[in-house]
Amino acid sequence: MTSEEVKTMQTNYVLQSWSKQKGLNPIAIKRAEGIYMWDFDDKKYSDMSAQLVNLNVGHGNRYIIDAIKEQAEQYCYISPSYGSEPRAELAKMLIERLPDNMGKVFFTNGGADANENAIKMARMYTGRDKIFSRYRSYHGSTFGAGNLTGEPRRYPLEPGIPGFVKFFDPYIYREKIPFESEEAAAEYYVDKLREQICYEGAANVAAIVLETVTGSNGIIIPPKGYLKGIRNICDEFGIMLICDEVMAGFGRTGKMFAFENWDIKPDMVTFAKGVTCGYVQLGGVAVSKEIAAYFEDNTLLCGLTYSGHPLACAAGVACLKFYDDTNILEKVNQVGKVLGEKLNELKEKHDCVGDVRYIGLFSAIELVKSKSTKEPLVPYGSDTAGIMKGIIGRLAKKGFMTYSHENMILIAPPLIITAEQLVEELIKVDEVLTEVDAEI
Amino acid sequence: MTSEEVKTMQTNYVLQSWSKQKGLNPIAIKRAEGIYMWDFDDKKYSDMSAQLVNLNVGHGNRYIIDAIKEQAEQYCYISPSYGSEPRAELAKMLIERLPDNMGKVFFTNGGADANENAIKMARMYTGRDKIFSRYRSYHGSTFGAGNLTGEPRRYPLEPGIPGFVKFFDPYIYREKIPFESEEAAAEYYVDKLREQICYEGAANVAAIVLETVTGSNGIIIPPKGYLKGIRNICDEFGIMLICDEVMAGFGRTGKMFAFENWDIKPDMVTFAKGVTCGYVQLGGVAVSKEIAAYFEDNTLLCGLTYSGHPLACAAGVACLKFYDDTNILEKVNQVGKVLGEKLNELKEKHDCVGDVRYIGLFSAIELVKSKSTKEPLVPYGSDTAGIMKGIIGRLAKKGFMTYSHENMILIAPPLIITAEQLVEELIKVDEVLTEVDAEI
Ligand SMILES: Cc1ncc(COP(=O)(O)O)c(C=O)c1O
Ligand SMILES: Cc1ncc(COP(=O)(O)O)c(C=O)c1O
Repeated sequence: MTSEEVKTMQTNYVLQSWSKQKGLNPIAIKRAEGIYMWDFDDKKYSDMSAQLVNLNVGHGNRYIIDAIKEQAEQYCYISPSYGSEPRAELAKMLIERLPDNMGKVFFTNGGADANENAIKMARMYTGRDKIFSRYRSYHGSTFGAGNLTGEPRRYPLEPGIPGFVKFFDPYIYREKIPFESEEAAAEYYVDKLREQICYEGAANVAAIVLETVTGSNGIIIPPKGYLKGIRNICDEFGIMLICDEVMAGFGRTGKMFAFENWDIKPDMVTFAKGVTCGYVQLGGVAVSKEIAAYFEDNTLLCGLTYSGHPLACAAGVACLKFYDDTNILEKVNQVGKVLGEKLNELKEKHDCVGDVRYIGLFSAIELVKSKSTKEPLVPYGSDTAGIMKGIIGRLAKKGFMTYSHENMILIAPPLIITAEQLVEELIKVDEVLTEVDAEI
Repeated sequence: MTSEEVKTMQTNYVLQSWSKQKGLNPIAIKRAEGIYMWDFDDKKYSDMSAQLVNLNVGHGNRYIIDAIKEQAEQYCYISPSYGSEPRAELAKMLIERLPDNMGKVFFTNGGADANENAIKMARMYTGRDKIFSRYRSYHGSTFGAGNLTGEPRRYPLEPGIPGFVKFFDPYIYREKIPFESEEAAAEYYVDKLREQICYEGAANVAAIVLETVTGSNGIIIPPKGYLKGIRNICDEFGIMLICDEVMAGFGRTGKMFAFENWDIKPDMVTFAKGVTCGYVQLGGVAVSKEIAAYFEDNTLLCGLTYSGHPLACAAGVACLKFYDDTNILEKVNQVGKVLGEKLNELKEKHDCVGDVRYIGLFSAIELVKSKSTKEPLVPYGSDTAGIMKGIIGRLAKKGFMTYSHENMILIAPPLIITAEQLVEELIKVDEVLTEVDAEI
């Protein structure tokens, strides 16, 4: 097919996520390697969001491709009740990489169903109904995961499922209270959450679900002491702490799992994206030994046709081996340092940059109309003029591919990016921000 | 790894669907080809449920394996907003195989999320909330799909999502009313549904969701006129008719889509399983041209990281080509005839067989304590003694692999099975039913 044929056929026959379909003009991709993609005219694009922050290893990873080809020759699929080597091996590898309180893994296809199953299991295990999650969060778009989600992508799933309760995020940049320290902020947010849990009836609360580091909604990083404080609340009331590591997991923040940055042990960890980097779709929930033990004698009322898909698990085994063999965490920390420095430079230089937030290779630039008032460049939930889309489009013209959310530009390249590549790419951001400065 | 290692590792680290984890003893599979699988001791098993009724083409299909290997070398994944050849091509091929009222496809990973997105779209398109589905149904286990589901696998998702309403199935075998004909039964059930919709407020009803032929819950086949009647109700009140073809689609019933057997056009069709046979996970929703047009100017508030996954779509393209090239529908109809004859023989011969139901290569044997009272062999929702599990275990000992649901044994082999293979396998069923006869 030609580029035009692919585009026309796709827009004629495929419904594209989160979009009005009119006027879509997708870039047709012909090949991809490392952090780059090429269209049919050999125009090169750099993948500065690792697609949807899943492609940690970049395109064309030989470990994973070879594993897929080998597993495909043995068998692609057998149902969850049969013993399958890649399924067993990947589960073991995951548990070995998780804290020592973790027991078993339930596999799904992606992030939404990972969260769906986590909250189901938390309800079964605790016998309680209420589920706490945060406003500036995205946990998926199926009914359960979408009711966890706090941002506007939740609205089409309302009236909501009974028992889902939202609490505020530790979004310090926009907080009116002048905290003296990160620790003071953490204490404030934890106290407020504890108060809200008491109002809702602590004995009714099954789980607190949070993105360890909030991803799409703007890389909101928990202040020091925050996660420990939430862990304490959970211990006090017998509530399950579920860390959604779908985006933040697998090296993105410089640790294998993001919660390791704050030294806590969740009761459940949901994952997807980086476990296979999306070469084959895979997600899952890791549960503590106590929860695993509960399901020895109590039926696990969870299931899906493709739980523990062998081809996907083979991709996962290869992916984790690649992380190990290439010392990926060290790379992320080295290049992440450069990213942080460059982002701070951008913040100093540009009037339109209100805040930059980064950890590992996970970062966002928050755009404002004025540094002093902090007024967002576009109002919450309603960029009707398409201002952010315009900025993303200008970056794309320069070959810098990423996406935005509200007034934030996400930068989260494949973890294999070199410092040189990163610096080269950030020049394009600098140029576009200079244009935005002139317009505000 | 040895067989023992696979088993031990899997039971130590993997949570298995719909099970108490204690005592699981999975058969570890080493290789698989056509309708057969072999364990590590070279013991052969025949796959008489096509795994979870997804493996229509059997194991080791060269079309699909080669397509996966080729696509993996080009790229495994690019995000939904890029143009991708296999994604575009598969969508077009699907629309070409669906009725002429169908417009576009939204891709998901499996059956549950296909249904989740279908009901979301129906709500957006109609601006209404209520969703009708049936009691003896399974539509998936995430919150939305699980609330559609009528059988006990729904319970852990309750208290349910507001607006989900259940109606009765056209389950004639167990109906007290002595219908004179299929058509009379159809008229009765359709009238009852219409009455219920009026009580719920027809103007509040967004969609009626049904498995065109009920699968896991016992191959309940709609009586003649039933689907036409439901189509009429939908037309009368502006309700979307959503056919769940996750299990029944792609040749299983002898037609490409099951609803073709009754000559109706749904507004949406959800699919998964047979579209790739699970070689790579894929599902989706096809929507009518009217619905597709609505989302030209209205944002489609649906999305998932792996929507339109290129590797999965490449598998789908190859799978549909295989169906075409091998004239799969003709095969299903030929071998399906033999299946029907043999099942009727079993029904005549065995006291424990209350009913057999079949269409294409989709069938169930319903077991009873007595043919005259029709008392089910195990009570609804509570086979605590594990009687059905025991029967499935005896079949497995003979190398006949399938699963049961309530008092029913499912028989739904890969569509590539020959008449000879089928007849050979059904002897094992005959033998086990003889034992059951002796026990009731
Ligand atoms: C934190 C988080 N959780 C869950 C999801 C949902 O994952 P999926 O798109 O695979 O359903 C996402 C997707 O971006 C995510 O970022
Ligand atoms: C009719 C039907 N719909 C939906 C599903 C759910 O599909 P999945 O297991 O891929 O979520 C199934 C699974 O068996 C099914 O049979």
